[in-house]
Amino acid sequence: MFNDSSPAEIETIMQNAWNAFHIYRKLSLQQRANFMRAIATALESCGDELIHTAMQETNLPEARLRGERGRTIFQLNSYAAACEKGDWLEARIDTAIPEKVPPKPDIRKMLVPLGPVLVFGASNFPFAYSTAGGDTACAFAAGCPVIVKAHPAHPKTSTIVAQAILTAADSCNMPTGIFAHVYGAGFEVGKALVTHPYTKAVGFTGSFTGGKQLFDWGNQRKEPIPVFAEMGSINPVFLLPEKLNSSFAEIAQQYAASITLGVGQFCTNPGLIIGIEGEGLQNFIHDLGKSIQKIVPAPMLHTGIVNAYKINKGNALLQEDVHLVAESETMVKDNEGLPTVATASAEAFLNNPVLHQEVFGPYSLVIRCKDMHEMIEVARHLEGQLTATLMATSSELQQQVELVEVVKNICGRFILNSVPTGVEVCLSMHHGGPFPASTDSRYSSVGADGIKRFARPMAFQNWSNELLPDELKNENQLGIWRTINDELSKAAI
Amino acid sequence: MFNDSSPAEIETIMQNAWNAFHIYRKLSLQQRANFMRAIATALESCGDELIHTAMQETNLPEARLRGERGRTIFQLNSYAAACEKGDWLEARIDTAIPEKVPPKPDIRKMLVPLGPVLVFGASNFPFAYSTAGGDTACAFAAGCPVIVKAHPAHPKTSTIVAQAILTAADSCNMPTGIFAHVYGAGFEVGKALVTHPYTKAVGFTGSFTGGKQLFDWGNQRKEPIPVFAEMGSINPVFLLPEKLNSSFAEIAQQYAASITLGVGQFCTNPGLIIGIEGEGLQNFIHDLGKSIQKIVPAPMLHTGIVNAYKINKGNALLQEDVHLVAESETMVKDNEGLPTVATASAEAFLNNPVLHQEVFGPYSLVIRCKDMHEMIEVARHLEGQLTATLMATSSELQQQVELVEVVKNICGRFILNSVPTGVEVCLSMHHGGPFPASTDSRYSSVGADGIKRFARPMAFQNWSNELLPDELKNENQLGIWRTINDELSKAAI
Repeated sequence: MFNDSSPAEIETIMQNAWNAFHIYRKLSLQQRANFMRAIATALESCGDELIHTAMQETNLPEARLRGERGRTIFQLNSYAAACEKGDWLEARIDTAIPEKVPPKPDIRKMLVPLGPVLVFGASNFPFAYSTAGGDTACAFAAGCPVIVKAHPAHPKTSTIVAQAILTAADSCNMPTGIFAHVYGAGFEVGKALVTHPYTKAVGFTGSFTGGKQLFDWGNQRKEPIPVFAEMGSINPVFLLPEKLNSSFAEIAQQYAASITLGVGQFCTNPGLIIGIEGEGLQNFIHDLGKSIQKIVPAPMLHTGIVNAYKINKGNALLQEDVHLVAESETMVKDNEGLPTVATASAEAFLNNPVLHQEVFGPYSLVIRCKDMHEMIEVARHLEGQLTATLMATSSELQQQVELVEVVKNICGRFILNSVPTGVEVCLSMHHGGPFPASTDSRYSSVGADGIKRFARPMAFQNWSNELLPDELKNENQLGIWRTINDELSKAAI
Repeated sequence: MFNDSSPAEIETIMQNAWNAFHIYRKLSLQQRANFMRAIATALESCGDELIHTAMQETNLPEARLRGERGRTIFQLNSYAAACEKGDWLEARIDTAIPEKVPPKPDIRKMLVPLGPVLVFGASNFPFAYSTAGGDTACAFAAGCPVIVKAHPAHPKTSTIVAQAILTAADSCNMPTGIFAHVYGAGFEVGKALVTHPYTKAVGFTGSFTGGKQLFDWGNQRKEPIPVFAEMGSINPVFLLPEKLNSSFAEIAQQYAASITLGVGQFCTNPGLIIGIEGEGLQNFIHDLGKSIQKIVPAPMLHTGIVNAYKINKGNALLQEDVHLVAESETMVKDNEGLPTVATASAEAFLNNPVLHQEVFGPYSLVIRCKDMHEMIEVARHLEGQLTATLMATSSELQQQVELVEVVKNICGRFILNSVPTGVEVCLSMHHGGPFPASTDSRYSSVGADGIKRFARPMAFQNWSNELLPDELKNENQLGIWRTINDELSKAAI
């Protein structure tokens, strides 16, 4: 049913996207926002057909998919609002000082779009990080046409969403080529798209292997382009003794739920839990195991992910000094992910890079440290992470400054006394982190700041007012925030 | 006198920088700013010795060097003010909404420093883009230690400036390792520094070959790091006929000065001037030639640059359909750059990539187009540029929308009816541009926005007020701008 796009088709698609870019980038912020809102409405109009198709293709339950569609619609609408508001444009104006020697010219700067953006659909978020997901919404807000490569695990779902985007584009009189939907089961189509000269940026959420390959292709081009790959992480959780002793039962329950939420198929899944040997940790491990035993396995997204989970988990459990704590007691089917918790000493973890790798699924490894010193050693040896979490009392936080500082330096989001799963869509969210969590720690793939991934600053020097873009004109008709002679202001000049 | 740093020395320097990072990044914005201001004062205190040493090493005249030191001091002071002001932190706060389902947590985000930054001194700006130049100032403001690799063309100048920085560091009680000065005539030292695991970002201004090599090393690391290489460009100037006809003499004079300013050793030197065949262009070429003949040659920065200028210019003049217009009439010495203007048809330019390459020095090529259509073709075939300039009347700008749009898309700064040389240090400046002008078009190497090159966002979720960094605390004691629940504000919470 779904054939790979041919090189000739890709060429036409990219030419159309390039042509569309020159029209779309001149449209007003309001026109872009209206288009995004029309996509949100069209997604809503897809009704149950979209939900049922996604259920078939992803094995995700109905409630989750309805919730995820709601999130996707919220993203489109809230990024549309941010687009119109214009804070992201980073408008800066320095007015002329003719009497200076040499005279200071009038200079005005704002962000302008990069060009056509290629988005790879993610398998674990068929709506929110796929066809009309966060990357697509950010690119449209920035003023860029979008080419989506459908994830091969949910092509029908992706097609319905793509049709909704095209309907919205039509109703808003968007230029031909503003959006294209491409299939490709193998790597050839992806490679042809990333290396096409008209592609100016790439958004991706998925595995390290996939993301790193796109990053390398992007950088090896004659004209290198930014590749924003969010590649997941093991999201370490540090359990400090006082906190653990006082509430091990509650934490165990909270984490059993977080580890197995969505069959563990979230990039913020807590895959590593680090505690200090003692009664509190023993109790925690015991209770966590008991809770995990009671959790009923559920189907994973697709065969590839189930098989990878079995292999990676099996491999982790085979490592020296790794011991199984508990598995779900319910009999597991072939397509299901078996909730599992294991444990290892800090020494084993420090000496074995295999244990630092993400096991994508409902699995977590509890690391037992001899003391706080060893816990800090573990923190020091961690790679870049999307999130890190501390479970600690106030007095522990005040005492353990070194641990806090080490952890700060490796994560994109630092959570206190909660769980890393659940990524709020808001401006203060940072979803990204030092490599290998993402390829560019300076950008977020969640929240309206993600728009800035697809734009670059451009300065106008010595232009007369009527020739400037509306965003930089004296009048400030759009009412946006601008930094005028070093002071933030909404004032006209 | 100056030996390459050994691998053991580099290891010690990087270890010290890493240790310093963990202390320096916790210092307040004010402490960072005070340190930067102390460097500015120490630079001033270097007095005439610094100027005279730089004159010997760079062949640049005294007035220029005094001016450049002034610019460097201004950069340090103005980026210090920006650092304290904190707009660059992009502080975002979303307060908790406990009644939401699921409850929305309190999330607060700000930029945090990347880690030790490696800066390569530039030969053409011995002060402003070298040891204590823009990259160094931005890195210190961001909270990062700096390792400078001295440019081999001015090691003594660099050493004096490095000593000034160390004096300032000492007087401000900065941690050991906050700054290091490294020598390396060959590529080995640079490569060892770029590929060292503790190096987290690189700043460079120089040739395409050098910058691209650093970019590749940076991306090929196990942990890729951002490499901000500003690699120059040919800075095209478009002469529209009505404007040219009315003021060819004035424009010719203005451009003869711009082409030869600083012996053409600026990355914004106008290396390509594009006009449309006709009397206006003929008159312009004639007058430009006359002006160039009268300009007295001056010594270039160093032997390598003079020789490269001779070879690259000679090669450009040998290309088919390229004709010499004029050279300076003054006899040229071996170490001097001979002011030169040549001309070619648009057809020749479109068919010959050699003519698209930068000839670093006092040289410019005038391209003759048959009509506006061909001028747009030339614009379409240009690579990414730091700057582009239009010389046009208001009515021409209104008519030539297509040209304006094409040019917008290839440049970082777009100048109207002026010259590209002269890069104002202010927030609205963008010095950077689409590849190959720079390796990351999203960042500027001039102006306080350059601080953001060396920082990444980090979100704090569910932290209590007293544990947050001062910048994100409810009180807003620092009085910085923050986006609170989507609205920019200086208010406390």
